[in-house]
Amino acid sequence: MVRWRCGYCGFEFDAYLQYYWRCPVCGRPLGLVYSVTGEVTGSRNVWERYRGFLPFVPERYRGEGLTPLVVERNDLHTLLFKLEYLNPSGSFKDRGSALALYYGFRMGFRKSVDDSSGNAGISVTLYSKLYGLEPFIVMPRQAPEGKKRVVRQLGGVVVEAEGRDGAAKAVHNYINEPGVYYAAHLWSPLYIVGYSTLSYEVYEDFGAPDYIIVPVGSGGLLLGVVNGFEKLKERGLIEKVPQVIGVQGYSVQPVYTAMYGRVAEGESSTLADGIMVTSPPRLDEVVKAIKNTGGGVVLVSNSEIAKAYETLWKWGFMVEPTSATVYAAYEKIFRNMKEGSKILLILTGSGLKTLQ
Amino acid sequence: MVRWRCGYCGFEFDAYLQYYWRCPVCGRPLGLVYSVTGEVTGSRNVWERYRGFLPFVPERYRGEGLTPLVVERNDLHTLLFKLEYLNPSGSFKDRGSALALYYGFRMGFRKSVDDSSGNAGISVTLYSKLYGLEPFIVMPRQAPEGKKRVVRQLGGVVVEAEGRDGAAKAVHNYINEPGVYYAAHLWSPLYIVGYSTLSYEVYEDFGAPDYIIVPVGSGGLLLGVVNGFEKLKERGLIEKVPQVIGVQGYSVQPVYTAMYGRVAEGESSTLADGIMVTSPPRLDEVVKAIKNTGGGVVLVSNSEIAKAYETLWKWGFMVEPTSATVYAAYEKIFRNMKEGSKILLILTGSGLKTLQ
Repeated sequence: MVRWRCGYCGFEFDAYLQYYWRCPVCGRPLGLVYSVTGEVTGSRNVWERYRGFLPFVPERYRGEGLTPLVVERNDLHTLLFKLEYLNPSGSFKDRGSALALYYGFRMGFRKSVDDSSGNAGISVTLYSKLYGLEPFIVMPRQAPEGKKRVVRQLGGVVVEAEGRDGAAKAVHNYINEPGVYYAAHLWSPLYIVGYSTLSYEVYEDFGAPDYIIVPVGSGGLLLGVVNGFEKLKERGLIEKVPQVIGVQGYSVQPVYTAMYGRVAEGESSTLADGIMVTSPPRLDEVVKAIKNTGGGVVLVSNSEIAKAYETLWKWGFMVEPTSATVYAAYEKIFRNMKEGSKILLILTGSGLKTLQ
Repeated sequence: MVRWRCGYCGFEFDAYLQYYWRCPVCGRPLGLVYSVTGEVTGSRNVWERYRGFLPFVPERYRGEGLTPLVVERNDLHTLLFKLEYLNPSGSFKDRGSALALYYGFRMGFRKSVDDSSGNAGISVTLYSKLYGLEPFIVMPRQAPEGKKRVVRQLGGVVVEAEGRDGAAKAVHNYINEPGVYYAAHLWSPLYIVGYSTLSYEVYEDFGAPDYIIVPVGSGGLLLGVVNGFEKLKERGLIEKVPQVIGVQGYSVQPVYTAMYGRVAEGESSTLADGIMVTSPPRLDEVVKAIKNTGGGVVLVSNSEIAKAYETLWKWGFMVEPTSATVYAAYEKIFRNMKEGSKILLILTGSGLKTLQ
């Protein structure tokens, strides 16, 4: 049995009778309630492999998950690079969309909508088409032309919006139509559940790291990865959840501000367009998760991102600038991490979409 | 012990004493002689996993191989899509470059050179940098700008050449310099060995298919995949090597012509730029391999490729046009394939490099 549950006001409903993208009572983000067996199979389909950790197994598969883990050692540390940009649509979002769009299909929706300037829109389009939903992706007019082209080539409709207000209005027009599924990658707990599979893979390939460095926009990936390691700890497979270092840019730093109670001054960070989320719906949860692991938030700037981006490409990691933030953060804080530490760096998105 | 051996004139030498990119006696392509144990491990590093089938295991790894297999059923057949475009540099070439550049490194070379209009150049660059060789990639001036940009961003030097003659001259200038390793992806048997790992993966994930549809430029991928299934048959794991259907375009059809003794007329096929190899060095071997499996060659045209490309993208396979040739070929011949057949379609390269 799977239920949606609001962790704030307690409102709860059966996942297969209704769908709300946020709590209809208090307007906060919802969570999922389901039981797990913890069984891991030998399948190379990520959903079959970790079905014992999931609320349901999607019927179809497009190659998402089970991404490579590249282990490199430097003088001080072991770095684990998780190549999430080798997901089918070029980003980690596919782990979430595969569950979220399957669920939308199961609930009988015919159209989908999501608001995204990039990777999420591409991912929602791919999995919407896989399940026969017609995708409408609301994008700011200024979004990279390359990413719009990918959405269209996959069969999605790009709805161009003027600024944040225009985007919000366009999305709400769609949501209010009958038969339209709001995939809501910033809100849906299905994305968090999908991201948690990344942790099971790292655990199987290497074991638990000491630190995890992860870019934070909405914080969904961070919550998913922490959730995955928490589940491994609950089952007695690991002793503690790794310390999580969230990375934001100086230009948009809501998680940093909520953690430390102040705004840090620094060079702008517009290169990291994938994490410029000014109001993460789960801000409180993200801060709590970081604190629980004894982790923190690191801010990076355009020049630091650009340097890390060059370095990662020369090493053969063809990532987008947003993904380079994790190595930029490592460069900033590596002296504070104990010698011999094992550090997971999540490389979130492909650089091929925006190189041109 | 690993030896290079010319299958034509018999010239043979120790792989760790010398390197020739082709037979120094008769000028034909070389083969490799080595023994295998057939052992398969549980590792998720492709080289560790199949070390029992390989001449050596490269020291480093960038996420190549173990690509997803997507199984789809239509009314007549089971289609197995092998997502080779999710290799780290966006194409199947990485399986070969990982071995070839490691070997160049082991042999003490400091620079590498290769001639390629696209994916091979990108792949050679990535693995050259991984092993500290300085890569020079000879590309035709008309090659897609996007692919040149990827080579440069990875740290390679793009050497622009005028036409085939210019490219040949530029490559030979480099080869004749001391310390320069000619990766020679069209010639080197290390590429073929690398590609053979694809077959072991398909066998592990699904079992042996009845047919394999594969794009044929130089035919290296075809030879590698056949080689892999032959090794599985030698060890008694499968009963027969699947029938291989090589796909070429009407514009450049040397394998078709060698198979059937004639040139077929048809619309041009310039969209499939990745398989426009007019003189495949291993032409005889390719024809023999196809005949041995009872397979054939199918020619496709630009309009067929374009249609297949649109279809694959709508299905969520973000491939380049050259990769779409396999589905175009399937559409042309599916009525001749027995009901219930299992058909492997190898999706070779990412569409993100050229979309813009």
